[in-house]
Amino acid sequence: MKTQLDPLPMKMKLLLSILILSLIGINSKAQEALFGAQQIISPEIHDDSSVTFRFFAPSAKSIQVTGDFLPTVKIESPMGEMDGPGKAELTKDDKGVWSFTSEALSPELYSYSFIVDGLKTTDPNNPFLTRDVASVTNVFIAGEGQAALYRVKDVPHGTVSRRWYDSPGLGMDRRLTIYTPPGYEQSNEKFPVLYLLHGAGGDEEAWIALGRTAQIMDNLIAQGKAKPMIVVMPNGNVIQDAAPGEGSEGMYKPAFMIPKTMDGTYEGSFKDVIKFVESNYQVKADKADRAIAGLSMGGYHTMHISRYYPNTFDYMGLFSAAIMPREDATNSVYSDIDGTLKTQMDNGYKLYWIAIGKTDFLYDANKEYRAKLDTMGMPYEYVESEGGHIWRNWRVYLTQFVPQLFN
Amino acid sequence: MKTQLDPLPMKMKLLLSILILSLIGINSKAQEALFGAQQIISPEIHDDSSVTFRFFAPSAKSIQVTGDFLPTVKIESPMGEMDGPGKAELTKDDKGVWSFTSEALSPELYSYSFIVDGLKTTDPNNPFLTRDVASVTNVFIAGEGQAALYRVKDVPHGTVSRRWYDSPGLGMDRRLTIYTPPGYEQSNEKFPVLYLLHGAGGDEEAWIALGRTAQIMDNLIAQGKAKPMIVVMPNGNVIQDAAPGEGSEGMYKPAFMIPKTMDGTYEGSFKDVIKFVESNYQVKADKADRAIAGLSMGGYHTMHISRYYPNTFDYMGLFSAAIMPREDATNSVYSDIDGTLKTQMDNGYKLYWIAIGKTDFLYDANKEYRAKLDTMGMPYEYVESEGGHIWRNWRVYLTQFVPQLFN
Repeated sequence: MKTQLDPLPMKMKLLLSILILSLIGINSKAQEALFGAQQIISPEIHDDSSVTFRFFAPSAKSIQVTGDFLPTVKIESPMGEMDGPGKAELTKDDKGVWSFTSEALSPELYSYSFIVDGLKTTDPNNPFLTRDVASVTNVFIAGEGQAALYRVKDVPHGTVSRRWYDSPGLGMDRRLTIYTPPGYEQSNEKFPVLYLLHGAGGDEEAWIALGRTAQIMDNLIAQGKAKPMIVVMPNGNVIQDAAPGEGSEGMYKPAFMIPKTMDGTYEGSFKDVIKFVESNYQVKADKADRAIAGLSMGGYHTMHISRYYPNTFDYMGLFSAAIMPREDATNSVYSDIDGTLKTQMDNGYKLYWIAIGKTDFLYDANKEYRAKLDTMGMPYEYVESEGGHIWRNWRVYLTQFVPQLFN
Repeated sequence: MKTQLDPLPMKMKLLLSILILSLIGINSKAQEALFGAQQIISPEIHDDSSVTFRFFAPSAKSIQVTGDFLPTVKIESPMGEMDGPGKAELTKDDKGVWSFTSEALSPELYSYSFIVDGLKTTDPNNPFLTRDVASVTNVFIAGEGQAALYRVKDVPHGTVSRRWYDSPGLGMDRRLTIYTPPGYEQSNEKFPVLYLLHGAGGDEEAWIALGRTAQIMDNLIAQGKAKPMIVVMPNGNVIQDAAPGEGSEGMYKPAFMIPKTMDGTYEGSFKDVIKFVESNYQVKADKADRAIAGLSMGGYHTMHISRYYPNTFDYMGLFSAAIMPREDATNSVYSDIDGTLKTQMDNGYKLYWIAIGKTDFLYDANKEYRAKLDTMGMPYEYVESEGGHIWRNWRVYLTQFVPQLFN
């Protein structure tokens, strides 16, 4: 019988049921999960920002959850004792559903994995994942406050494009990610540009996925805290044309490739990126409207690019920058670091912003670098945060850096 | 001692090692995998397109791999016996690495999961995953031939953008994915447009991720087999503004929402999508330069949209279309199906293309629909493939449909 709540005729219902089942990648265990257990929600984020993690595994002997929402613990490694993510034990109910509820979490985007009988695995009930180098983990956002900047809010949204540009300096077409602010396409205005660089093991997907750049920019612009701007996220690995899986190398297991990406080639060819952007977008092509920032290796690139092109950027952001000795490097990009830094200083700029966490392994290198800048009399602003070399810090730094630009 | 092959000073090497370790999400098991076992490659695709799957799990009792690269098997379900993906057993070596090597596979993009002691899990050595509704599985591409169309080749690449548009008909800003062909941005030309619609449980990410639309278009255009065109991939779920995790609903477990997406609302508001595209892109805004196609529910939407706007599209593609009875639907979109189909026929078009697999559960519904068109004398072309209601077919259909457009 047809009612208001039941508007579908039987034949259609049958078709729909078959459709649903045929579209789900069914196997016997999935069926078990589908029909034998209740519909599992994981992670379930409660009103107080505590989070319940659940995993259906009647036969498992132990399940843990590990992630950056838990306090770090000391772990042994071949490099000595290090900080590692903590773990928490799940407990099993009589239906075979394991669960663990966290304490109330501070507002943040968190990542986590399960460890089932000793094996790390993703959460089959959470389809939201991010890749960091070769590791894929689930993510969730808890709370408002700072975390509200990472959410898709009901505000005007910019456009995110993956686009290819010609790099004569590297002899290939290369892929980049570009954010244009809300209204860009309808506007005749020209916009300022932030070049935002990833770290070692990252690529043109890192800032947009792990860094939540589009959400941060949409929200800061909507709140009037950031000027509408274009954000360009290039690929800093000079031996690849695009992120793993997105380029002509096909799908392969990503790895670090630091030596090739910190040998001066990227800095030397960075003009290709700027030229592409300034020829293809409505941008203000002057120093006052160019900013460059990056995390870790991207902070290193920011430092070197901005002094190598010493009158190009008015705003620099070094987020947990991998400051490294380059005295014996052969590329001419590094041949006169002190001289070009001094030229950059003499040319003047609006902001040289350095941020690092107190427990970052690059803390001392940054301290030495600041001492060098102090000796030179090169002005900078410095922010010291809690924590180490982690995405949480880099997202926060971005939200702190961007409001200072183009004012 | 410094040599050509060893260009990094010791201090930098140490920094790099710490950097690498600190960036990897280390826990004791990951360490075990990192330091205790060899570096595992999975999947390893051999020259003959056989594939070796590997999984490091010294304590596991049984590991299987399941996916669409294996022959289907009959499985029990509440709906009766159905086809499900096959499974293959991995065997363990003395280092705790399990492996299975497939037969030589025909060229294709495949998806797979492991089943470790009865629990489905992703492959920790393969960071390439796609989400289909709420299920996340690993993917790989084997072979050339048809599969070459799914690879990123060294050819000119179009731009893929995620952009928001205003839909007055649905009362919200909505997200869509748009492919513009290589050279679009530098061109003053106007381009034809293909509107490409997803199935139930899909969204504006489905065709670009699972369907490999950007790679297919780049490759077909480079081969001269397709005209340069814009491909618009909207979101067909009228109750959401964007794909799960990409819209204002935040991250939630995706589910089917067929009734709300097949009630006429989408078809009735589709003019908002066309208007947005034709106001914001360099397009030829005429019937001869508009095509519409979709899979499953998207085939249903294609059928209804193209007859509801009966003089708008010259090319229709119904891929495994969910042809369903709508005689008792209340939305006026469905009030005169036969009449509007006749009007569409009388107005004329270049191509009405229907494709379906022989074992698709919608085969009979499509057969009935073709009989109806035959009775009306409404011309169409028909392609019958092997297989059922699967992405493999929809990618193939796209590669067959696109070369017929805008000639």
